[in-house]
Order: sequence, then C-alpha cells, then structure tokens
Amino acid sequence: MNDKAVVLLSGGIDSSTTLAIARDGGYELYALSLDYGQRHSLELEAAAKVATQVGVEKHLLIHADLGAIGGSALTADLEVPKGGVKEGIPATYVPARNTIFLSFALGWAEVLEAPHIFIGANVMDYSGYPDCRPEFLKAFEEMANLATKASVEGKIRFRINAPLLKMSKAEIIRKGLDLGLDYSLTWSCYDPTPEGKPCGACDSCLIRAKGFKEAGAEDPLI
Amino acid sequence: MNDKAVVLLSGGIDSSTTLAIARDGGYELYALSLDYGQRHSLELEAAAKVATQVGVEKHLLIHADLGAIGGSALTADLEVPKGGVKEGIPATYVPARNTIFLSFALGWAEVLEAPHIFIGANVMDYSGYPDCRPEFLKAFEEMANLATKASVEGKIRFRINAPLLKMSKAEIIRKGLDLGLDYSLTWSCYDPTPEGKPCGACDSCLIRAKGFKEAGAEDPLI
Repeated sequence: MNDKAVVLLSGGIDSSTTLAIARDGGYELYALSLDYGQRHSLELEAAAKVATQVGVEKHLLIHADLGAIGGSALTADLEVPKGGVKEGIPATYVPARNTIFLSFALGWAEVLEAPHIFIGANVMDYSGYPDCRPEFLKAFEEMANLATKASVEGKIRFRINAPLLKMSKAEIIRKGLDLGLDYSLTWSCYDPTPEGKPCGACDSCLIRAKGFKEAGAEDPLI
Repeated sequence: MNDKAVVLLSGGIDSSTTLAIARDGGYELYALSLDYGQRHSLELEAAAKVATQVGVEKHLLIHADLGAIGGSALTADLEVPKGGVKEGIPATYVPARNTIFLSFALGWAEVLEAPHIFIGANVMDYSGYPDCRPEFLKAFEEMANLATKASVEGKIRFRINAPLLKMSKAEIIRKGLDLGLDYSLTWSCYDPTPEGKPCGACDSCLIRAKGFKEAGAEDPLI
C-alpha cells in the first residue's frame, strides 16, 4: 500500500502513537501541527521531534489563532485545573478544537490527494471532550465528503481514522512502545515549570503517569 | 428577539449582504473575518468598513494560514483566471475553505453562546464551489451539534443560516440596497491593480458587474 495520510500531530502521547500506528500501516505520512496560541511551545517542539523519529514525508506547521476566540484554559487566562481529574468537560476544553484541526487536515488532504486523515481521538481516559466521540468523527467524515472538490468529483473518498478511539492510555503506551516510539520526545503537560519540566499535577500529567504505571513502564520523560 | 449571531464577513457582496440581513432580523451581531493569506488585504479592509456601517457588537479578525496548505489561486502562485466565467470548479477554489471558516465561527459561537451562524453561501452564480451547497451546510450543522460542549450539554442548538443560498446576484444586490447597505465599502476583485482598483476581468469582477446590471443599479465602487 502507498496511500497518503495526513496525521494530526500535537506532540502528545496520543497523536504521536497515532503517527507510529499509521507508519506501521504503510501509509505515506504528512504530519500536520497547529500553532493555535498554546501558552507554551514545548508541545510543538515535541511534535517536530516525533515527526523526525517516526519518519514523515513532510511536517507542516500552520498558525491558526484559536487564542483570539478564547474560552479555554489552554489559550486564555483561565487557570489550568490541578488536584485530580474531575467528571465532566474540563476547563482545558478548546472550543471546536478538533473541528478546526480536522478542517485544516481536510484542506491539506485535498491538496495532497490523500484519502486518509488520522487523529488521536480517544474516548476512554478523556470522556469529557465531545469532539473525541465516534459520532462526532462520523459526522465530520460525512461532512468532509460533501465539502471538497476532490470528493464531489468522485476522485477521493475521505476517511477519518481514529485508531486509539477505544484504547486505554496504558494500551496506547504499550502499542507505541511495541512500535518503537520514543516517548521521551513527546510532551503532555499543560502547565510546565519555568525550567520546562512537566508540572506533574495537571490532568494531562496525571493521566500520563497513570498510563505508564498501568502499562508497567517507566516514563522516559521524567 | 435578542439572539446572538456570528456572521462570517469577507467584505464581499455576499457576506456583507448577509450581515445586513442578519441586522434586519434583529440579531446581536458578531462579525468574524479570517485573514487566510489572501494575496491582498483590500478584502479585509472592506470587511472592517462594512462591519462599522452595518453596526456590530464586535468584529473579530483571526489569522489562519490557509496559504500554507496551498492549492488555490487566491493563496498560492496559481494565476487568477480571466476572460469569462467557466463551467466547473474554478481555480480560485480554496480547499476546505468554508469548512475551516465555519469551524472558527463555531468555536467563537460556542464561547459567545450564540446559537446562530450566518454564512453568505450561494449556489446560483457560483455553482462550482462544493462547500456552498445546501447538503454541505446541513452536514456541517449536524456535525457542529455533536462537536461542542454547549450543544452536547443541551444548552445550545447551533443553526447554520445561509439566507442568500438560492438568490441570484441581482436579487442579493437589490436586497442589500433595500436594507441601506453601502456597496461602495465592499470588495470583490481577486486581482486588483497596483493602484488598488478592481481589475474588471476576474470571475468575481464579472459576476459583480453582471449582478449590478441585472439589478438595474450602478456599482458605487466603480
């Protein structure tokens, strides 16, 4: 197989493992990262390192100013929650984030004539994000195939692939380790220390630590 | 009525008339313009002038680098077609443009708790753009209501409004004139002269001229 695939790559565990899975599937890889006014750039540096380790045809960074919209602790002046993962949709939810990310991926996929779009959406550890659910991904796929010149002309049928959808964080990490992914290159923390170390207390750090523990592995980043 | 509405505003005839229609409908208006690497900024200046004339609560400009994706004569180094409107999807088609624009509108609408999104999509004069068709808009609306915290929690049902959908350019212009819209503030040309005047030869100039002629009106921009 030599199908092209656009892979959304944030540099976290999920998207990095998704990239490794797509590599294992034999796709020609085009990694897409969005600089969306995150409060730190360690995530984007991680994405670049992971793209290099896994091996991609191209890694494209697009600036898209979600910060101007506001509404999230990741882009606005809200406080990043600490002290344990709560029920419900977290304050770190970015409005319409995956919709916007997938829309850019769709635009690039059309230009590349790439039928596959990969996203590290996952419902298990993070049930709070509505735009990680399978019904959302299916609705996006349907919309995508009505949206573009390539699909309307019958040249391409776009597929949204979310291989992690029903995997636990531990399963994701074991899969990535099996595929040789170097997790020391990835980044998860929402609120790093001034020295650029993970805070160890935000939801994302807690979920990462629990995942490595349950996978029976050491986190090489710590 | 005092419903909030996010209105996508490019500064062209269609989006400007859409804004005037939403104003006439009594909505509280939030105009959203995207700086997407257009080859000239006259369009964005027009959007700002129109937002002021029509009267909006806020006009937000978001930078989103569609130019990095490429694939369109509007953002890349392809030549803008001249010499008459051809059949089929034109070279000025921007991959996934309306999908990306509507995604940003959705993100802002969620933050504002605005149930209404207005877009100047129109199938009559420009049948070549797949992402202007009603089936696309309907699919986007369905996806939007699965994508966001506000809709999943039952607080908002998002509606994509495309009041121009089946109007001819002449009907659109007559409607805008009836509503007092000053079309001298709008901008249509894809390829302005070095002096900042419309070229008069690109598809967009030709469609505009034909629209004013059929509406029995003078174009105040010329």
